[in-house]
Amino acid sequence: MMSRRFGYELKATSGGARLGQVTTPRGVIRTPAFMPVGTAATVKALYPDQVRDAGADVILANTYHLMLRPGPERMARLGGLHDFMRWDGPILTDSGGFQVMSLAGLRKISEKGVSFRSHIDGSAHLLTPKRSIEIQCLLGSDIQMQFDECTPFPATRDEASASMELSLRWAERSKAAFTRLAGDGQALFGIVQGGIHQDLRARSAAALVAMDFSGYSIGGLAVGEGQARMLATLAQTTPLLPADKPRYLMGVGTPLDLIESVARGVDMFDCVMPTRSGRHGQAFTWDGKINLKNARFADDPAPLAAASNCPAARDYSRAYLNHLVKCGELLGAMLISWANIAFYQELMAAMRAAIHEDRFADFAAETKARLQGA
Amino acid sequence: MMSRRFGYELKATSGGARLGQVTTPRGVIRTPAFMPVGTAATVKALYPDQVRDAGADVILANTYHLMLRPGPERMARLGGLHDFMRWDGPILTDSGGFQVMSLAGLRKISEKGVSFRSHIDGSAHLLTPKRSIEIQCLLGSDIQMQFDECTPFPATRDEASASMELSLRWAERSKAAFTRLAGDGQALFGIVQGGIHQDLRARSAAALVAMDFSGYSIGGLAVGEGQARMLATLAQTTPLLPADKPRYLMGVGTPLDLIESVARGVDMFDCVMPTRSGRHGQAFTWDGKINLKNARFADDPAPLAAASNCPAARDYSRAYLNHLVKCGELLGAMLISWANIAFYQELMAAMRAAIHEDRFADFAAETKARLQGA
Repeated sequence: MMSRRFGYELKATSGGARLGQVTTPRGVIRTPAFMPVGTAATVKALYPDQVRDAGADVILANTYHLMLRPGPERMARLGGLHDFMRWDGPILTDSGGFQVMSLAGLRKISEKGVSFRSHIDGSAHLLTPKRSIEIQCLLGSDIQMQFDECTPFPATRDEASASMELSLRWAERSKAAFTRLAGDGQALFGIVQGGIHQDLRARSAAALVAMDFSGYSIGGLAVGEGQARMLATLAQTTPLLPADKPRYLMGVGTPLDLIESVARGVDMFDCVMPTRSGRHGQAFTWDGKINLKNARFADDPAPLAAASNCPAARDYSRAYLNHLVKCGELLGAMLISWANIAFYQELMAAMRAAIHEDRFADFAAETKARLQGA
Repeated sequence: MMSRRFGYELKATSGGARLGQVTTPRGVIRTPAFMPVGTAATVKALYPDQVRDAGADVILANTYHLMLRPGPERMARLGGLHDFMRWDGPILTDSGGFQVMSLAGLRKISEKGVSFRSHIDGSAHLLTPKRSIEIQCLLGSDIQMQFDECTPFPATRDEASASMELSLRWAERSKAAFTRLAGDGQALFGIVQGGIHQDLRARSAAALVAMDFSGYSIGGLAVGEGQARMLATLAQTTPLLPADKPRYLMGVGTPLDLIESVARGVDMFDCVMPTRSGRHGQAFTWDGKINLKNARFADDPAPLAAASNCPAARDYSRAYLNHLVKCGELLGAMLISWANIAFYQELMAAMRAAIHEDRFADFAAETKARLQGA
């Protein structure tokens, strides 16, 4: 019988890389894990069974988009997000914070929360720590995020500090709301902020750990600081987090980002890159990213990846994909998005295998060389 | 073993409706048949196995689009259209004539053929009866169409007559090219023209039958003349065609058009309607066509058709489809196009069953009432 509790088990390490398992009432998440992004209750251009068959254990959905359409109360009346979109595995939701912050000119931040206008119809909304958690509970999210402010880059040290302290106060209020509203087995993650400032990250991590969350997200990275600063910040931050809780790096990233971040102790990721690239004709392969619009593929009978288990990567020629993309055919976006989600899952599975066999450093070096066309 | 020859067998009739079977080297086509349209080597927004599983035995592809992209010589080098798009069943191609005629201002008709400029890049092309057949053979089409002029509506009697006579001369030249170029089991259909003029249709049919084609298409209908004139013309035309050859009504139509045309002895149809409507949020059901954008579906937990074998029609709520369509999500177009193709196939299967049981008139009356919400 499936456990009604949320949990994390660390199974093996290889250098800094961690092999583990997150348990939720809706199923197990093998970590390191990549979560396909289902912004508006759909992983764009994929059927839910394709996402599952590609190897994804968990998907992410966006509170901001779902609070506007179809609306959290309607979603709850319809039986919750899982039934609505026909995904019966775990779902992680963000808090909505990141996306309302991005509404430059349409939002105002105060101690209370963020007031903003919808990008769709201009209607006025207020998102607070309590309302964010309330919405995530109405959606039926398995893994919820505290409401936070994603500190922009660049920011002065004072700005980064004030922003991080605000997120800590919102963490307290998020946790209080979650404790009141959430059901058995649902989990809440705190989000470490602090920009690229090591002491601020340390202060944030320590305060959050003291509040005792089910897992810890690392926010405010991959926002323009560059890969070197991101990895340096990660390397300083993950050791401050408890080994017996999962760590989630938000909004990351490229295949190389994933490998480097796993090497620094990250367990969970999400990113729109595989699906967004898929809609623009760009495919991820073990030999790097290719643009299928390129004329050199027009006569290429080879598939994206003959050895893949994904029909989209295995069964259709690059010539056909080139044709579909050039014609603007939906099937082009469908096939390449599917192949990209499958590639990301293959990459995670390969990393898990390498950690299990304690050869992660070798795997990372070989794979990075191959991905860069060396 | 599959026959290497093309053939048609009339199995039963019910009133004017015919139950039959077209045999091709790539498989059998149960008639009356609806052919999903795969314009540019893809039935828009569907995977090939979804088209097959929905019950389609045959699809249509467009010579005009494929001659421009990816080009017929390239397609032949890549192994032909079937391999290219991963459809191993029969494929019927049009001649390209209809679509080049539609290029108002970009094309010029002469006895020789049609010279035109590509709608994509303005490049100059010439399509003749011989070149049309050559292209259809390069694509590897199983059922090919003679090159013809689709007489527009309205047209004077003289215009309709001259156009029909031109199509007859092109039929001779198409057949000569086909005899030289086509392989075992490939078939060529003549196309009956003549507008809404009964004597012209009779002249066209008699001349084509004398040339002895493998099947007969009825062209130049559903071009603005209205359903009543279309059905009257059909009723006068099908009796002029041999009973032992299939009859294909080009570019038709709505569910009601299909029922009325089957009643008048038509065996094969194609139309973009199910997929085009699907991309615009309109779904076909046994109780008529519905617009899923409509706000009344936002809270509707019912699927499009609980009794359908098609997952798109059976498993997703109207509320979810409404949400996807409102958000412009690709999955909305994917699911509704799929459900529509499945509905069209269910309709054809139901008509075949009704003919088999010799109750087509009753079936037609009941179904028409239901489709119209009576």
